[in-house]
Amino acid sequence: MKTPVTVLGLGAMGTALARALLAAGHPTTVWNRTPGRSPELDELGATRAGTPADAVAASPLVIVCLLVDATVRATLDGVDLTGRTVVNLTNSTPEQSRTTAERFGASYLDGGIMAVPAMIGTPGAFIFYSGVPEAFEKYRAELSVLARPAYVGEDPGLAALYDIALLSAMYGMFGGAQHALALMANAGVPATAFTEQFLSPWLTAMLASIPRMAGELDNGPVDTAGSNLAMQAAAYENLVTAAQTQGVDPRLLVPMGELLAEAVAAGHGDEGLSALVGLLRSA
Amino acid sequence: MKTPVTVLGLGAMGTALARALLAAGHPTTVWNRTPGRSPELDELGATRAGTPADAVAASPLVIVCLLVDATVRATLDGVDLTGRTVVNLTNSTPEQSRTTAERFGASYLDGGIMAVPAMIGTPGAFIFYSGVPEAFEKYRAELSVLARPAYVGEDPGLAALYDIALLSAMYGMFGGAQHALALMANAGVPATAFTEQFLSPWLTAMLASIPRMAGELDNGPVDTAGSNLAMQAAAYENLVTAAQTQGVDPRLLVPMGELLAEAVAAGHGDEGLSALVGLLRSA
Repeated sequence: MKTPVTVLGLGAMGTALARALLAAGHPTTVWNRTPGRSPELDELGATRAGTPADAVAASPLVIVCLLVDATVRATLDGVDLTGRTVVNLTNSTPEQSRTTAERFGASYLDGGIMAVPAMIGTPGAFIFYSGVPEAFEKYRAELSVLARPAYVGEDPGLAALYDIALLSAMYGMFGGAQHALALMANAGVPATAFTEQFLSPWLTAMLASIPRMAGELDNGPVDTAGSNLAMQAAAYENLVTAAQTQGVDPRLLVPMGELLAEAVAAGHGDEGLSALVGLLRSA
Repeated sequence: MKTPVTVLGLGAMGTALARALLAAGHPTTVWNRTPGRSPELDELGATRAGTPADAVAASPLVIVCLLVDATVRATLDGVDLTGRTVVNLTNSTPEQSRTTAERFGASYLDGGIMAVPAMIGTPGAFIFYSGVPEAFEKYRAELSVLARPAYVGEDPGLAALYDIALLSAMYGMFGGAQHALALMANAGVPATAFTEQFLSPWLTAMLASIPRMAGELDNGPVDTAGSNLAMQAAAYENLVTAAQTQGVDPRLLVPMGELLAEAVAAGHGDEGLSALVGLLRSA
């Protein structure tokens, strides 16, 4: 028989996790504060537990996917976790994850899910894990049912940190794209044609600069290829001015302009974009 | 004989443009305010002109690549442009380009170069053009020597607008990546490994969301796949908190958090990311 697994929390994500486990043949016990949530899980063979304690008692592997960090403590406090591995996939900050690990931690893993619920169980999804390495090794196969697992270290806060770093990068990219689409929309240019012909290919090409930036951080600066921060700071002003003239709120662009100007003022004018990372770090 | 071409301005970019023309066998006349700039062009066969008027008289196609918009007017005012096509590749805003077109415009093209100088003449580079369509058709072959040309319309401000839109998107992406790299650096994680294993693949995967966003703008909203703006606004707070706790300046992230919160307050909580474009447009 496959390892019995418990899922605490049946929001959209918890439900997707339970579905994937059931689809893979794991005896799956579910609990949700509001009973009867996600009735489709009953048809798929899930067992409903009436309390968190009953749910935890049912399986050696307990996956927690609740609303916020405070809900995790409220749900697990006082529950006997002896012999249980707790895998906490609730959205959290690294600090929150470290605190939760101290509290529930003999065999604790923290996770950061890099997917929307619809992607769970599909090849594009992956989940960061950090915490007790033996717990990860023991349940690697079970966790692989949910999404490709990436173990990033013993510090239980690391999974949340990696998760947050990637989400931050994503929102930067989306914000830039949204600003570009707003500019084109105000000029009457259809978004789809602009994106297919120019925006997507351009961002794809510019992605190649990011490993270069990373290399400079690890190994020191290289040639700026004729485009140093002083030149970029001067040219950046056109970006803000043009947005205002086109009737587009420049707010997503403004902080980068300030950062470029500060970098030049601090003597980094002849360096490349990786110098900005140093300024952000010394906040 | 190939078309004679004049290049006004021998900064890093102007020099790269002249080199590409010389390499393709075009008789090339160059002018720079400070004489003797880029001596390597002499060895490649360039002809030096002593004044802008002499330089313009030498070729039917005049490529202008000066420091800023004001330099273009200062250089061309009073010069006889009869029978000349002026292709202005100087960095400018759409408004500046429209003004320059009115001034110098019987056969005027404005351009936005999507490349650093080292990329000129290589397959990755392209240049947006807008303005008089007959001028573009007449000199398409010559312009193709510099970089792949993309003509985007008669309004002479459009090339600058497309250019600025793509640069804005790029800076958004770079800013997000820089923030992510600062987070990891403060946690002692090497940048290269993080980028190769996670950051680049993740951004590549998330790029697929941008055509979806564009499609929503043209055709109306679709299903938010379990991740609407209300959920994103709530989760976003962790991004800012985690940055502060890790000692990273959250400034590049802050405006997106505010925009998400405003979108929810304005009743867009159940919509997707394309709704933010609408908020930016109505500035």
